[in-house]
Amino acid sequence: MPWQWLRDYRQDTFASDLLAGVIVTIMLIPQSLAYALLAGLPAEMGLYASILPLLAYALLGSSRTLSVGPVAVVSLMTAMAVGKVAESGSIEYASAAIALAALSGLMLLVLGFLRFGFLANFLSHPVVSGFITASAIVIGLSQVRHLLGIEAAGDNLPALVGSLYRHLADTNPVTLVTGLLALAFLLWSRRSLQSVLLKLGLSKTVAGILSRAGPVFVILATVAASYLFDFQQYGVALVGVVPGGLPRLSMPPLDLELWSQLAGSALLISIIGFVESVSVGKTLAAKRRQRIDPNQELIALGGANVASAVSGGFPVTGGFSRSVVNFDAGAETPAASMLAALGIALAALFLTPLLFYLPNAALAATIIVAVSSLVNFDLLRRAWRYSLSDFAAVMTTIVATLLLGVELGVLAGIVVSILLHLYKTTRPHMAVVGAVAGTEHYRNVERHNVITHPNLVSLRIDESLYFANASYLEDYIYELVAGNEKLEHVILQCTAVNEIDMSALEALEAIDHRLREQGITLNLSEVKGPVMDTLQSVDFLANLSGRIFLSHHQAVKALKADEIEPYII
Amino acid sequence: MPWQWLRDYRQDTFASDLLAGVIVTIMLIPQSLAYALLAGLPAEMGLYASILPLLAYALLGSSRTLSVGPVAVVSLMTAMAVGKVAESGSIEYASAAIALAALSGLMLLVLGFLRFGFLANFLSHPVVSGFITASAIVIGLSQVRHLLGIEAAGDNLPALVGSLYRHLADTNPVTLVTGLLALAFLLWSRRSLQSVLLKLGLSKTVAGILSRAGPVFVILATVAASYLFDFQQYGVALVGVVPGGLPRLSMPPLDLELWSQLAGSALLISIIGFVESVSVGKTLAAKRRQRIDPNQELIALGGANVASAVSGGFPVTGGFSRSVVNFDAGAETPAASMLAALGIALAALFLTPLLFYLPNAALAATIIVAVSSLVNFDLLRRAWRYSLSDFAAVMTTIVATLLLGVELGVLAGIVVSILLHLYKTTRPHMAVVGAVAGTEHYRNVERHNVITHPNLVSLRIDESLYFANASYLEDYIYELVAGNEKLEHVILQCTAVNEIDMSALEALEAIDHRLREQGITLNLSEVKGPVMDTLQSVDFLANLSGRIFLSHHQAVKALKADEIEPYII
Repeated sequence: MPWQWLRDYRQDTFASDLLAGVIVTIMLIPQSLAYALLAGLPAEMGLYASILPLLAYALLGSSRTLSVGPVAVVSLMTAMAVGKVAESGSIEYASAAIALAALSGLMLLVLGFLRFGFLANFLSHPVVSGFITASAIVIGLSQVRHLLGIEAAGDNLPALVGSLYRHLADTNPVTLVTGLLALAFLLWSRRSLQSVLLKLGLSKTVAGILSRAGPVFVILATVAASYLFDFQQYGVALVGVVPGGLPRLSMPPLDLELWSQLAGSALLISIIGFVESVSVGKTLAAKRRQRIDPNQELIALGGANVASAVSGGFPVTGGFSRSVVNFDAGAETPAASMLAALGIALAALFLTPLLFYLPNAALAATIIVAVSSLVNFDLLRRAWRYSLSDFAAVMTTIVATLLLGVELGVLAGIVVSILLHLYKTTRPHMAVVGAVAGTEHYRNVERHNVITHPNLVSLRIDESLYFANASYLEDYIYELVAGNEKLEHVILQCTAVNEIDMSALEALEAIDHRLREQGITLNLSEVKGPVMDTLQSVDFLANLSGRIFLSHHQAVKALKADEIEPYII
Repeated sequence: MPWQWLRDYRQDTFASDLLAGVIVTIMLIPQSLAYALLAGLPAEMGLYASILPLLAYALLGSSRTLSVGPVAVVSLMTAMAVGKVAESGSIEYASAAIALAALSGLMLLVLGFLRFGFLANFLSHPVVSGFITASAIVIGLSQVRHLLGIEAAGDNLPALVGSLYRHLADTNPVTLVTGLLALAFLLWSRRSLQSVLLKLGLSKTVAGILSRAGPVFVILATVAASYLFDFQQYGVALVGVVPGGLPRLSMPPLDLELWSQLAGSALLISIIGFVESVSVGKTLAAKRRQRIDPNQELIALGGANVASAVSGGFPVTGGFSRSVVNFDAGAETPAASMLAALGIALAALFLTPLLFYLPNAALAATIIVAVSSLVNFDLLRRAWRYSLSDFAAVMTTIVATLLLGVELGVLAGIVVSILLHLYKTTRPHMAVVGAVAGTEHYRNVERHNVITHPNLVSLRIDESLYFANASYLEDYIYELVAGNEKLEHVILQCTAVNEIDMSALEALEAIDHRLREQGITLNLSEVKGPVMDTLQSVDFLANLSGRIFLSHHQAVKALKADEIEPYII
């Protein structure tokens, strides 16, 4: 799959890719700096995470338009993970972030080689959407301190709000004004800049490029203001010295204790990053009838993170907004991402001196505007209308993420959705059935007017039988036969039973044993081929009190007593 | 349910219960002392755990013959849990064991009141059996040090074996001889004592009682030998001073930090104890056509553990071997257990001075013989023959329990069996179907000779659709329609779909959207009532490109093009 696009690469494809590359570069420069700030890391690490990882994904990925690099949610998770093992701002903090990228990259590679892409299926849509909404709120709130120019910290909503409230009196007025102006301009530019530029008579292409450049204008304007009015003397927090030049390649720190401390967080970051990235990739690929391969994506994202680690970056993944922009701008092949990597490399070489004067408040405004579009409470309304268990999963994820932080939040969501699913399967769907008059069809006696026989009961099982529902089946059948004196046969219609595991087999043996003591035979009908094979591999069929029938109708015909009367539950 | 038996209690019932009570007492005295030793606790705590808990269960339980009290596996788990928070032999150690019983009791009560008995369903038979086999091995090995009279410790097989090997040179010969003689006698008496007694002309009742008394003979004989030959001077480890008298009631230690440290272990002990107890209870109840109520059992076991805690005991549950003996001895009502509690109370009042001279080696021999019958490797062979996933679950449980200890072992078993189940459901069973000639029946095209139509494809879905299998369905359908130029309609036969969750709904919407772009309609047939209700609660049906049909045959009749040809995959 990778590299296929290169075979018929043409000049007009390059033109499209170049335009997309320029637009993504313009978007990525402020984002890479901002997400480094969000992760608590020096600004240059944001640039480093936006060069080699893009190239690595372009070489390995199965999506043609995915834009890999620093991403809001993963940057927040990086800050949380690294904050547990090192002091913010220290050298150890930065090298822990590099180790985290390396570890996450290796985990993704291993999962990819093991073809474990299916793991992503366990993150349900409601959980992912709820998690992203809640993380966006935490991220937005975590940036308010930069807008106010105060110290505040916390990895969850109550801690953040409490901390902000305590330090509110320290607000720096110049910082606040800068931040609010930046915020106002960004919100306005997102909504109206493009139409204004078009009205001014600019071509659609130029207007398209410039309308994405809102954050770049904010950076240029605030750098200029900061330089001219000497913001530093008013105590405004600036980005400060950013070393220029390309990243140097080096081995990530090989500290086993550090790696083992980071392992859990690295796994979570890998899975969240993978799921976010694959869902964007799938959406975009579907629009052009392309396919993406989840296992190849694991390998490509693994490669991108390893590339980030060896070039001094932090964890990366495919970002939603940037990928959509890349796609809309007309990117046709991974060459667009390669060109964006080149753009960031040029920025790292030549633009870093400018960044000294950049106020953190401007970057915080960029982050807040970027994540504000991720908050989606409509989801809660939809889930509520749809089903209680989906609502419970979303609600748990949102509340746990807000109150306990991102890591526990997403874990709680996954655990709750799996438990709810398992709980539902502990009560397999079953129905007592009878014949529709004049046909060989059997239907639920509670919903249809059907013929039954007093000496037998037909039970249709609508699910596979396995350890979690085996004992329910036992109880259900005992309840069914209790006090039913005329009963001679129980027939289980196994049309929908795709599997019977060992626990369920033992339950069936127990049922057979117990029914036999009461003079009742247990019979099976319409058993699927593979299930029949496993039943034959043990003594179950040989010991069964009753028989196995090919069709349920044959079973009823063979076992019914002469008289016919409506079955009464 | 509880107390029902009292209404028609008669004199001959009492005679049966009394006999069973005496036999259980004879069995319980050595067991209660031995399991206290196994848990690393003073001997009197074993007696205390065998008085009030039996009464509490008799008052609350739904099984008439279950024998509650100290049990091997739970005692080992107690040792592991308490060993993590306190030094063995210290006062803190004993009070942590009491706190553990209180915590586990409260958890069971809460689970019972919430009617969470279904939780036990997630411990599959293979996992429970594998866990008990592996625990029995760890328990047996943990007692070898008492047989040898050496110091050795470890909560897993390699640690235990290593520790035994290192201290082997310290073996105390007198202890070893005592232990081996006890072991040999117990093994012989279990196999042959009853028939020898019958041959000696004893009545069946007396022979029955005496044949259970092997451990009591061992205790009496070793106490006598220890007293006469002054074992103490040879360095033989003895039980030592055991305070006589009934347990005093007191509040368990209310130390929040301790409780939070023990919480995880308490939950595991509660669940394991509950599952072990309920499976014994069920087996015995079924033999007499009685029923037990899992939620009532949670409450009764919760009450028994709280009773144990307030009377200075440690965690208890329903034991397999004792319950079977109680049942076989003719126990008909919980009065048998009440009489056994009375028996232990008498022992606590009058027999404790004897115990001073009791060698630990004798108790260790009792434990080894008791757990040896729990080891069952035949299970592995059965699981191997039956299915790979059942075998994987058993093997994981056994290996993890042996190598990582009981707590991680059982957790690994639960996690692996749930993951295997979930993995299987990520690929829902589906089949392309066609009509059986001359009928309205549709069957798998790969197995039957059926009629299909080139302009439509019928897909039968054999499972509920939910987050873990939604994306597989998407991929499957895209694969199915790819390159099929004549295709106009896809019909999903939803006979076996009991539920469609929100993630699956989104997948169906995505499928519909994508098929529509390709000029193909998506249709559903035979949708169940409840599923129809949820689909109607959202806009899915209104936006669907195709239609909903009551029967699959109607759908095919309505959508098929005129020509008929065999469907080719």
